Amino acid sequence: MTAHSGRHFLQIPGPTNVPDRVLRAMARPTIDHRGPEFAELARDLLRRLGPVFGTGGPVVVYPSSGTGAWEAALVNTLSPGDRVLAFDTGHFATLWRDMAEGLGLVVDLVPGDWRRGVDPAAVAERLAADRAHAVAAVLVVHNETSTGVTSRVPEIRAAIDDADHPALLLVDTISSLASIDYRHDAWGVDVTVGCSQKGLMLPPGLGFNAISQKALAAADTARLPRSYWDWAPILAANEGGHFPYTPPTNLLYGLREALLLLEEEGLSAVFARHDRHAEATRAAVRGWGLEVLCADEREYSSSLTAVLLGDGHDADKVRQIILDRFDMSLGTGLGRLAGRVFRIGHLGDLNDLTLAGTLAGVQLGLQLAGVAVDPGGLQAALDVLRAAHEDRTGDRGEESR
Amino acid sequence: MTAHSGRHFLQIPGPTNVPDRVLRAMARPTIDHRGPEFAELARDLLRRLGPVFGTGGPVVVYPSSGTGAWEAALVNTLSPGDRVLAFDTGHFATLWRDMAEGLGLVVDLVPGDWRRGVDPAAVAERLAADRAHAVAAVLVVHNETSTGVTSRVPEIRAAIDDADHPALLLVDTISSLASIDYRHDAWGVDVTVGCSQKGLMLPPGLGFNAISQKALAAADTARLPRSYWDWAPILAANEGGHFPYTPPTNLLYGLREALLLLEEEGLSAVFARHDRHAEATRAAVRGWGLEVLCADEREYSSSLTAVLLGDGHDADKVRQIILDRFDMSLGTGLGRLAGRVFRIGHLGDLNDLTLAGTLAGVQLGLQLAGVAVDPGGLQAALDVLRAAHEDRTGDRGEESR
Amino acid sequence: MTAHSGRHFLQIPGPTNVPDRVLRAMARPTIDHRGPEFAELARDLLRRLGPVFGTGGPVVVYPSSGTGAWEAALVNTLSPGDRVLAFDTGHFATLWRDMAEGLGLVVDLVPGDWRRGVDPAAVAERLAADRAHAVAAVLVVHNETSTGVTSRVPEIRAAIDDADHPALLLVDTISSLASIDYRHDAWGVDVTVGCSQKGLMLPPGLGFNAISQKALAAADTARLPRSYWDWAPILAANEGGHFPYTPPTNLLYGLREALLLLEEEGLSAVFARHDRHAEATRAAVRGWGLEVLCADEREYSSSLTAVLLGDGHDADKVRQIILDRFDMSLGTGLGRLAGRVFRIGHLGDLNDLTLAGTLAGVQLGLQLAGVAVDPGGLQAALDVLRAAHEDRTGDRGEESR
Amino acid sequence: MTAHSGRHFLQIPGPTNVPDRVLRAMARPTIDHRGPEFAELARDLLRRLGPVFGTGGPVVVYPSSGTGAWEAALVNTLSPGDRVLAFDTGHFATLWRDMAEGLGLVVDLVPGDWRRGVDPAAVAERLAADRAHAVAAVLVVHNETSTGVTSRVPEIRAAIDDADHPALLLVDTISSLASIDYRHDAWGVDVTVGCSQKGLMLPPGLGFNAISQKALAAADTARLPRSYWDWAPILAANEGGHFPYTPPTNLLYGLREALLLLEEEGLSAVFARHDRHAEATRAAVRGWGLEVLCADEREYSSSLTAVLLGDGHDADKVRQIILDRFDMSLGTGLGRLAGRVFRIGHLGDLNDLTLAGTLAGVQLGLQLAGVAVDPGGLQAALDVLRAAHEDRTGDRGEESR
Repeated sequence: MTAHSGRHFLQIPGPTNVPDRVLRAMARPTIDHRGPEFAELARDLLRRLGPVFGTGGPVVVYPSSGTGAWEAALVNTLSPGDRVLAFDTGHFATLWRDMAEGLGLVVDLVPGDWRRGVDPAAVAERLAADRAHAVAAVLVVHNETSTGVTSRVPEIRAAIDDADHPALLLVDTISSLASIDYRHDAWGVDVTVGCSQKGLMLPPGLGFNAISQKALAAADTARLPRSYWDWAPILAANEGGHFPYTPPTNLLYGLREALLLLEEEGLSAVFARHDRHAEATRAAVRGWGLEVLCADEREYSSSLTAVLLGDGHDADKVRQIILDRFDMSLGTGLGRLAGRVFRIGHLGDLNDLTLAGTLAGVQLGLQLAGVAVDPGGLQAALDVLRAAHEDRTGDRGEESR
Repeated sequence: MTAHSGRHFLQIPGPTNVPDRVLRAMARPTIDHRGPEFAELARDLLRRLGPVFGTGGPVVVYPSSGTGAWEAALVNTLSPGDRVLAFDTGHFATLWRDMAEGLGLVVDLVPGDWRRGVDPAAVAERLAADRAHAVAAVLVVHNETSTGVTSRVPEIRAAIDDADHPALLLVDTISSLASIDYRHDAWGVDVTVGCSQKGLMLPPGLGFNAISQKALAAADTARLPRSYWDWAPILAANEGGHFPYTPPTNLLYGLREALLLLEEEGLSAVFARHDRHAEATRAAVRGWGLEVLCADEREYSSSLTAVLLGDGHDADKVRQIILDRFDMSLGTGLGRLAGRVFRIGHLGDLNDLTLAGTLAGVQLGLQLAGVAVDPGGLQAALDVLRAAHEDRTGDRGEESR
Repeated sequence: MTAHSGRHFLQIPGPTNVPDRVLRAMARPTIDHRGPEFAELARDLLRRLGPVFGTGGPVVVYPSSGTGAWEAALVNTLSPGDRVLAFDTGHFATLWRDMAEGLGLVVDLVPGDWRRGVDPAAVAERLAADRAHAVAAVLVVHNETSTGVTSRVPEIRAAIDDADHPALLLVDTISSLASIDYRHDAWGVDVTVGCSQKGLMLPPGLGFNAISQKALAAADTARLPRSYWDWAPILAANEGGHFPYTPPTNLLYGLREALLLLEEEGLSAVFARHDRHAEATRAAVRGWGLEVLCADEREYSSSLTAVLLGDGHDADKVRQIILDRFDMSLGTGLGRLAGRVFRIGHLGDLNDLTLAGTLAGVQLGLQLAGVAVDPGGLQAALDVLRAAHEDRTGDRGEESR
Repeated sequence: MTAHSGRHFLQIPGPTNVPDRVLRAMARPTIDHRGPEFAELARDLLRRLGPVFGTGGPVVVYPSSGTGAWEAALVNTLSPGDRVLAFDTGHFATLWRDMAEGLGLVVDLVPGDWRRGVDPAAVAERLAADRAHAVAAVLVVHNETSTGVTSRVPEIRAAIDDADHPALLLVDTISSLASIDYRHDAWGVDVTVGCSQKGLMLPPGLGFNAISQKALAAADTARLPRSYWDWAPILAANEGGHFPYTPPTNLLYGLREALLLLEEEGLSAVFARHDRHAEATRAAVRGWGLEVLCADEREYSSSLTAVLLGDGHDADKVRQIILDRFDMSLGTGLGRLAGRVFRIGHLGDLNDLTLAGTLAGVQLGLQLAGVAVDPGGLQAALDVLRAAHEDRTGDRGEESR
């Protein structure tokens, strides 16, 4: 393997680049998880975590991947044989649905084409038809990591409310949390599923559930077996700054540091930055003459962009060339999109110049792979970035040619 | 809070002191978990992991605490209503048993006094009486972290074999793995449960299952619901150096470094070191005029020592004094032992002089707390350490007075 | 101050971006500098250091900045009142000359315009005229960090030889070492001055002298007072892997890691990478319609490029905008170039995509500052990079539009 | 070489154990030393540095070892042929004196036996005899690292004043700074020489000069050649938070963190801790039946203790055994003390339990080496530590036997 100089460009849609400050925070020696110093750490970070989910309610932290947090959302709120409404919006929506079935739930599936998010009208229609209120929960992936499509959760919530349906709303924010505007309380979500290695800028290893009062009540009667994922003992122990089993201390050190970073930048600035980078990326894609997978501009993802290659091109070959030549990792096409798309992650700890380098690498890689692209793509992205800076300050330079 | 100088003494029985090399390894930037560099890392560490468990078979790694690995052992091998044989040997044995019941299993409990391990004769008797082979599994905690008692797994295995009973043998090695001699294959264990933050010298966040062929076969028919913990997709993905969900990359960096450290020292040297430190610790306890909780010398733990205080003394008050004055964390008494014992962890990355400092701190703390102890305790421990070094080299100094 | 996301772009001509591996190596605990582990470290890195200077002779390592290594070169080889030949090629050449005068040497100065390097013909002429051999040493800055001009040392050597003059040749490689081809032995240099924070990819804190046999002999009679900088006790102690005073252990940890990185990439690949990045940078500058300060294409620097702004523009204002908006540091104009140039560092641990991000940031910053630039500059740089990759592999993609 | 578990015991009298917090601070990426972030760092740490020296005046920071700071003190204040008064108090006093001679100064040497510090009466006598005021400076090593003897600077100052002599007072605090009470201003010291790797808990690489107004005035007329060490350009640049040459940024990160640690503990608490540890160490030495090298109890060093071995024992053999068996580094006997003493460093980032482990290791090592020692030594040290804790809090436990 060629030795690479400089820093690897990790532009997959997660895990994302972990800031140096977070890596150094994680390198602190592990401490006694039953002692006073740990309790102070835990209480502090649980307090700071709520605002990131947009909730004043509890957030449970698991030593797990995001997949574990999916399972936690299901087993704490549902019982064997319960019916859930799910949507074929992408690879990860499929995996979550498969998990639900594997755990003994019955899935009502709304079909989809993987280029659009959850259709609020379909939610309305399905729930209106469910007069018996057999559907116990609606499963929505907020930002589908395999497609770069962001579902409109407030409209989905409205559709449930309009149908006057008591179903719980469970939302996966794995690749949107701390990158794209999200409001657990305001949007009436019952369980929000998140994880560490995306917008939170941490390594993998932490899963999250933000929990509404309605979901807490549902947990009292839910009968899917649960032990590790059980909210109750965790919430009880968290009161005192502790956990019922050994918490992943060093990842929690990192989490606190990442939360401080988010607070320093400000969540609204974080979201605006992701919006700007996503817009610049789409400008590049169109400038190259390629197509953004997401088919509805209301659903563009601000954390990643999936790019469709035309027939005759293997997206994985392009990715391989970019990895070999430019030491940059891009996301592969998953499931039915394999070989047809590649995904550019632009979430987490990222700035304009790293995005510019990223898009330069994609452009060069496409060219080296023999994909006919217009090199004006990168310039189109830079124009978006420049315009954002000019707007911000009222600067008006001489016109460049 | 007083500012402390020097390094904290983390002498609880886990999490243990994470070596600097491991902390630095964990501070590497996170990489693409679907790329070739990750696959190489994963295959390498899975290869190195087997010998630590004493197995040539598969070892599954979870992003979880050890509690999660307990659950994994149960849900992969058992079905609702299955009967398991468990033993009241301590706090963690109790928690595992409670988990089994919570997941819908039926527990046959052999009573105990928390000063002894699993009695092989009791195993023999119970299984011989189970002519219908209703017992599906035997749950043994190898080294009970709450009591400092190490059960004799080979004798338990022999008891099962003598009864010609088909029950699976599930063993928790959470606080013995990589500290105390253990042999998954040679001892005929079906599932070995381990975690990262004890003998493996890592922060918490990884759980392990080593799996026998018999356990793999049991998984084919086991019907407890499982998804996150399911061995099958993990084993399949591991073949290519990957995981079915995002693995905790930075902890895996640390794991590889920790495995290299164990290889450099050699497992037999690691075990001998733990034996020596445990013997020295018991010498100190007796020298002080106090009692080791473990009542059977065949079952002394080499990774921790629980010390019984006489009536009229609050062990937690002693611990608090030691924490405040000497910046050392000791283990608290758990469950029915609360207030009556404290626990000295001497496992993981530890050497003679740190043990000497630890025992000096315990001695000073006992004195400051008003516990009448003979200060010859520390010297008794040093005599053990000295003898070990003299044996090792044939050194013979002049007699010291 | 605005919170910045992502990684700072440190594109000054040193200190350069320190690779993560080097930073982690430096975070190792300090060890006994008189013990066997240190001796092994020191001998190993002294062995690996020679090839980087292109020498089989000794290299002395100082706890100092590069300025200290300048002083060391002078005080070890010269005596009060000695005459040295120096060249007005830039800010750092001026500082070195000033130091020589401050130490009691007499400087013969060859004037210059700060857009060209040392003229070998001038060397020839001056030395030919020095029939009395009054000139004891010739002071050359190989790569002038303030101007981005690289003097042609082999031709200077030839000029000295042609004049049959015994003067020592002292060369500053502070911003060329490990970035631009350099050969202490082959080019007949007597003392090579280097430091840690440029091509060696380390933080500041180490100075170096590579020393010829002729320079060693000169040290025997040189009478400038010296103590800290004295080669003799250092060379003697280095034999055993030690130093006469406490060495900067953690920087030496970093140095060893940096040397390993250079070996992994290979010095010729390192030089070729710097040449490519410099060529791409010049293509951008010209594409923007701006001027490279260096006036002679034989003397283009591969480690930095100084860019001349036309009248009416303040280079430091451009730099400030780029720092504020894009979190990138560029080099300021020094001495007589203040305000008229900015300098782009492209040395050390750098890759194509970071260079692309760098040049994108310069282009955007120039535009925001109101400098009329052609945005085709960045594309011109990318064309250079693409061509390099196509050459390397014979790839031939479809023509992009 | 045997693999060692646990943490190395670095108990030489410097470099000392660098706290994890400092190591992590040093692992931050290097920044532009001419930018605003650096200026803020520099101004902040220069402000915090003064109190550690006990001065409100300037402190100059060099990228150098302490040896460099020695040279700086001399070349900034003295002229060729100047006479200085020096004292034969140990190995480092000898080295400093040799340096002075090497730089062209004339040394008046007061003989000594390396078991006592500078005799204030001798100072008084010599200066009184110097009616011509030929002596330009008095060179005192505050804490002689080779012997563990601390000279009484206030009494020396008084002796100079009593003689009404204008000589400058230059004091080396290399192994006392931030460990032993020291007051540059109050004691009327003119130049205080310090470095990073002892009480300041940093790796080697920084040298310091604290400077009185009288010394600044002397610098105006001092004629020893100086460039790198010249105070003037450094003090000028420091005004703006900058340095005349590239500063060792990452060591400065560490310095700021170390200064914060000292502020958190409080300097008086730091000094009291060192006093306690030194007293405990001497109690151990006497308890073993060995002799402390320092012959005057008014001059006991609180940062290290040199231990005399009786005839027939090789101190370096003892050190080697301790290194091999217990992974602990102790200081060797230097100069005329070679083989006859070993030195225990108890300065920097140290706590009671690490000291206890250290003394246990020395005791075990002496025994393994065949030195007849009374094992009551360690207990005597613990008694000192216990008494300190009892005094501190009025605790009164039951009497232990």
